[in-house]
Amino acid sequence: MLTDLDEEMRSRGLQAIVVLGDTTLSNPSLRYVIGCNIARDGIYVKKFRRDPLLVTSNLDIGTARRSGIVRRMTTFTELGFEKIAAKFGSSNAYPAKAYPHFLTSILRKEQITGKVGIYGRNDLSAGIQLTDELRRLGIKVSGETSPTVLESARETKSPREIQELRRVGARTSEVAKSVVETLRNMNRKRGRLHLGKELATIGMLKKRISQRLAAENLMTPEGTILAIGASGADPHNAGNPHDRIRVGRLIVFDIFPQAETGYWFDLTRSFVVGRADRKAKEMFEAVLEAQNHSLDFLREGVTGEEVMSRACHAIEQRGFRTVREIYEGKSRGIQSGFSHSLGHGVGLTIGERPYLSFLSRTPLRAGHVVTVEPGVYLPRYGGVRIEDTVLITSRGVDNLANLDKELEIT
Amino acid sequence: MLTDLDEEMRSRGLQAIVVLGDTTLSNPSLRYVIGCNIARDGIYVKKFRRDPLLVTSNLDIGTARRSGIVRRMTTFTELGFEKIAAKFGSSNAYPAKAYPHFLTSILRKEQITGKVGIYGRNDLSAGIQLTDELRRLGIKVSGETSPTVLESARETKSPREIQELRRVGARTSEVAKSVVETLRNMNRKRGRLHLGKELATIGMLKKRISQRLAAENLMTPEGTILAIGASGADPHNAGNPHDRIRVGRLIVFDIFPQAETGYWFDLTRSFVVGRADRKAKEMFEAVLEAQNHSLDFLREGVTGEEVMSRACHAIEQRGFRTVREIYEGKSRGIQSGFSHSLGHGVGLTIGERPYLSFLSRTPLRAGHVVTVEPGVYLPRYGGVRIEDTVLITSRGVDNLANLDKELEIT
Repeated sequence: MLTDLDEEMRSRGLQAIVVLGDTTLSNPSLRYVIGCNIARDGIYVKKFRRDPLLVTSNLDIGTARRSGIVRRMTTFTELGFEKIAAKFGSSNAYPAKAYPHFLTSILRKEQITGKVGIYGRNDLSAGIQLTDELRRLGIKVSGETSPTVLESARETKSPREIQELRRVGARTSEVAKSVVETLRNMNRKRGRLHLGKELATIGMLKKRISQRLAAENLMTPEGTILAIGASGADPHNAGNPHDRIRVGRLIVFDIFPQAETGYWFDLTRSFVVGRADRKAKEMFEAVLEAQNHSLDFLREGVTGEEVMSRACHAIEQRGFRTVREIYEGKSRGIQSGFSHSLGHGVGLTIGERPYLSFLSRTPLRAGHVVTVEPGVYLPRYGGVRIEDTVLITSRGVDNLANLDKELEIT
Repeated sequence: MLTDLDEEMRSRGLQAIVVLGDTTLSNPSLRYVIGCNIARDGIYVKKFRRDPLLVTSNLDIGTARRSGIVRRMTTFTELGFEKIAAKFGSSNAYPAKAYPHFLTSILRKEQITGKVGIYGRNDLSAGIQLTDELRRLGIKVSGETSPTVLESARETKSPREIQELRRVGARTSEVAKSVVETLRNMNRKRGRLHLGKELATIGMLKKRISQRLAAENLMTPEGTILAIGASGADPHNAGNPHDRIRVGRLIVFDIFPQAETGYWFDLTRSFVVGRADRKAKEMFEAVLEAQNHSLDFLREGVTGEEVMSRACHAIEQRGFRTVREIYEGKSRGIQSGFSHSLGHGVGLTIGERPYLSFLSRTPLRAGHVVTVEPGVYLPRYGGVRIEDTVLITSRGVDNLANLDKELEIT
């Protein structure tokens, strides 16, 4: 949480953190520390145990004030940015040469003399140039390996964030429910499904999904996975738009929308329209059992490794392979079975800490929000993955998704 | 263009460029050099006058191969990443400690001993750590001020990119046209507009726009501006969802969608439903004239400053203030009139080089794609902005937008 920043800074010996960017779009760290979206430049400076300061443009300061997260706020103009820019003879719209001098003047005013970390998603080349210049000017800039101060802080969600993730979860569940209903109501003729008078394709259904998402004010900057048959055997295959939707074939439907607030959600269901064959049933039961065992076991204090191991155990018991083989050095990669990790954090990004994998040895904490998504894949046949996004609590999990898990849409 | 990379590297004395990132999502530089979207890590290494090399995950190499832009391709696994990761005892999902060693081994294999630039939108803190480690390992990492090698290359669009921008422009124009038609067909009762049986609001119309965008496979990660009356007087105000749509009030409609290929478009129209008052007409005529003069004047060889000056002149002739006052030192900021720049480049981002402003003194080139968007704003009353996205050619401009410019929707 944002309130953990001081503790995270202390443990790393950082006297200050600076978060910057030319917008909050695709800049989750900047979005996080200021609590709102701004369209232009922002510089957030926080000294250890002090109130942070936000410097932004005249155009954005109103938005930033309304968010109420940062109390000390000023503009580039008020701090004389234009004068510094003129002095360094910047000839283009983004006066890069003036920037390190401007930032140094802010850090000096804030009486920051110790180690400074710099964050935010920005072009590395310009960031390296900025760092070199700041160091020449005497600022002690220090890099970090993952998890950085901000990755650690963002890991545990605040009540306000949980409320927002719950809202996005409810809207996502509604969209997913409508997709299942669309499939249920399609005309079935000789094994083929029709949308209106046309043969239903993955592409057509995806367009429907996009429109439903839009009606819920949700975006899908990373797309949607809707894959039928063999395509579904590859967990990253988004689905072939020209594939026809046929009865009896496994469909993997994985939806990961982002709300206008920047928060994401992640939900997957797998099903067949009509009757499933034995293979599909076996896969589905293994995956559902793995998910149930995981959800029952998850709570504050357990590690990602422990829950991953349980999910694998459930799947192995039903005769499928799992990535455990790789971690035990028994194979270099598996093509079939449970071939990925069990889950990842969700918040202002769709993949963040904590992770539920064999490498996750830190105990989970209340306030973590993670996906629980076991899957089983059979090459040239299809895949089953079932995924909810859940909140970890002291007593178990609070499932933020709300959608049935049924194999057959009859 | 991508084919300019060697020339841009030569002029900066760079022996190699490295573009990296954990996905192409919101990483336009990585998307640009590999010509497709990948979901996971990629490292692109290009030595001066040599074919580039792409290292990516097993999951993404198929996608990257199909794009056909990079010919030399390999995976993290093939280059022994897992072994290096194990050696450095990485205990989390992103083995940050191993990364600089892995990258160094690639650069050595490529026989790169000179200056290296590193690009791609990534968290600065981790990038600074990576740079410090690479330098310790003997790599000559060098930062750049804007415009970087990649910003310069991306400025001029290739025929393939122009084709894609044209396609996005046509789809965006269709959506905008449908919005005008929706407004035209709304029931008008006592100055109020109705959508079905309800009083039409900005929020309701925005939802319609989102659904139309979805039907055209367009996303709007930065939202849409639809602002009526006083809200429109602030160029960055996205519009108040609860505002009712009334006849006779100025509406600013600015739409900036992104296609699944990563390319954006930018289009603005301003209008009133029903009859416009004299003030609105004066604003509209000034802005339209400024845009026409700009479009007539624009061609290869002119500078952004020259066209900006002409746009301002047209607006000043009609009695409105412009930002020229600021650049001439006559005022510190203007609240009314033409308060922003004339335009910016559009491509894999919605705001990039070249810029059409008083600071743009480099001649424009054929293949540049820019917005031309003069505006006039009157506080507490409203705004007018008219914007097309156009291709600069040797003889003039090729307008990629296709939508009438009419003040009154009757």
